[in-house]
Amino acid sequence: MRPLILITNDDGVAAKGLRTLDEIAMEFGDVVVMAPAGNASGLSHSITTTRPLRVREVKLAEGLSVYSCDGTPVDCVKLAVEYFCPRTPDLVLSGINHGSNSSINILYSGTMGAVTEATALGLNAIGFSLLSHNPDADFEPGKPFIRHLIGEVLEKGLPADVSLNVNIPRPKEGPIRGIRICHEAKARWVDSFEKRIDPVGQPYWWLTGKFICDNPPQRSDEWALANGYVSVVPIHPDFTHYQALEELQRLSL
Amino acid sequence: MRPLILITNDDGVAAKGLRTLDEIAMEFGDVVVMAPAGNASGLSHSITTTRPLRVREVKLAEGLSVYSCDGTPVDCVKLAVEYFCPRTPDLVLSGINHGSNSSINILYSGTMGAVTEATALGLNAIGFSLLSHNPDADFEPGKPFIRHLIGEVLEKGLPADVSLNVNIPRPKEGPIRGIRICHEAKARWVDSFEKRIDPVGQPYWWLTGKFICDNPPQRSDEWALANGYVSVVPIHPDFTHYQALEELQRLSL
Repeated sequence: MRPLILITNDDGVAAKGLRTLDEIAMEFGDVVVMAPAGNASGLSHSITTTRPLRVREVKLAEGLSVYSCDGTPVDCVKLAVEYFCPRTPDLVLSGINHGSNSSINILYSGTMGAVTEATALGLNAIGFSLLSHNPDADFEPGKPFIRHLIGEVLEKGLPADVSLNVNIPRPKEGPIRGIRICHEAKARWVDSFEKRIDPVGQPYWWLTGKFICDNPPQRSDEWALANGYVSVVPIHPDFTHYQALEELQRLSL
Repeated sequence: MRPLILITNDDGVAAKGLRTLDEIAMEFGDVVVMAPAGNASGLSHSITTTRPLRVREVKLAEGLSVYSCDGTPVDCVKLAVEYFCPRTPDLVLSGINHGSNSSINILYSGTMGAVTEATALGLNAIGFSLLSHNPDADFEPGKPFIRHLIGEVLEKGLPADVSLNVNIPRPKEGPIRGIRICHEAKARWVDSFEKRIDPVGQPYWWLTGKFICDNPPQRSDEWALANGYVSVVPIHPDFTHYQALEELQRLSL
């Protein structure tokens, strides 16, 4: 039986990045797509608790089952695995995201929320992101690397509880130099909000912000991307800081 | 100068748990509250990107600055730190959540999203949750432990990049036996969605699910809570699985 690949994203079912990913995935197996109906960027690992979900089937291509769901990327993974996949997926893919999910951006990312959910469900999963927000971004230079990673993971699997956060450098910055296995760079966003005044004199605040990552170390994702490599970060859905378990003994608890 | 404590939650500005936490915090310092206007449970680390935010001042108690914001818990932390706190907070508190955020529940939790955001901003932070969804839950038995933890962290600080996920066992299950420093238990949710049919014959899906955590190890939060202890898990906003960095060498990348 061909492998079953479930695909979602956070840019919505109509995004070019999703279409690119499901074309590649169809080379490897049977594909089910369930993606948010519209833009679900920045939804992180959120779930829909206050209203039920609706699902609509969409015709995108011959031989491809595509569902549009009015929930979050995490909702899509849960619901698709439970009700819309004909069998347990061998691999869950998310993306290709239009924009970076490197470093701390993974925290906010709906694309990566879906990946972490798949891991929590015991499934192999990879999230792909391209460092370009252009809705018509050129995904061509990244395709050989995406193909290679999907092939390797389908053949060899991933360590237990581990999924991959894959970011692809911007195509206009020269040919991609290869793949690097990395840890997340430490970074932060500053100047988060811009205050404006509405026509009746009342304030409102737009989320904006500047990404700050000074001198990322050579084994980090930001270094890899800045130097033309595809960054591959092994991630897991456990927030425990294990080293701190000992350090906390100095608090009198 | 008294310490400045910023408080948020995900149950909304009117929740009893928030009121309980700001009463305790006022014993330790000056307090600013910015919380979601309504229920923001399950919003995880999400941010609001498609519309601007509005803020409304609310009178809750003498000497207390309280703001209601129509964004997520993470939005509240970012916006409060940047525009509504008179100085950089010495401590960020989130909760007290009505319901557990132990184990894998942290992934979905808006309460804990706010805590992780504070850590990413370089601030000390603690999230508190009580294992009861009752809007009128009894927070009294947990108060001495909350006081103790706030006092310790204000006095001694936390390790760099570390915050605390604190869960308090259910009051009706006997007196609390103390505090345990724990790692997250591995767990999963199964049977996530319930399918129903609407009055015109169309399907919809409600999020539900059953929490499964078999034989949690003795140093895990689920063990501590099941045995009447307050669980304290040191967490950090880095998803990298460091051990897997080596294991991944077996993939030909």
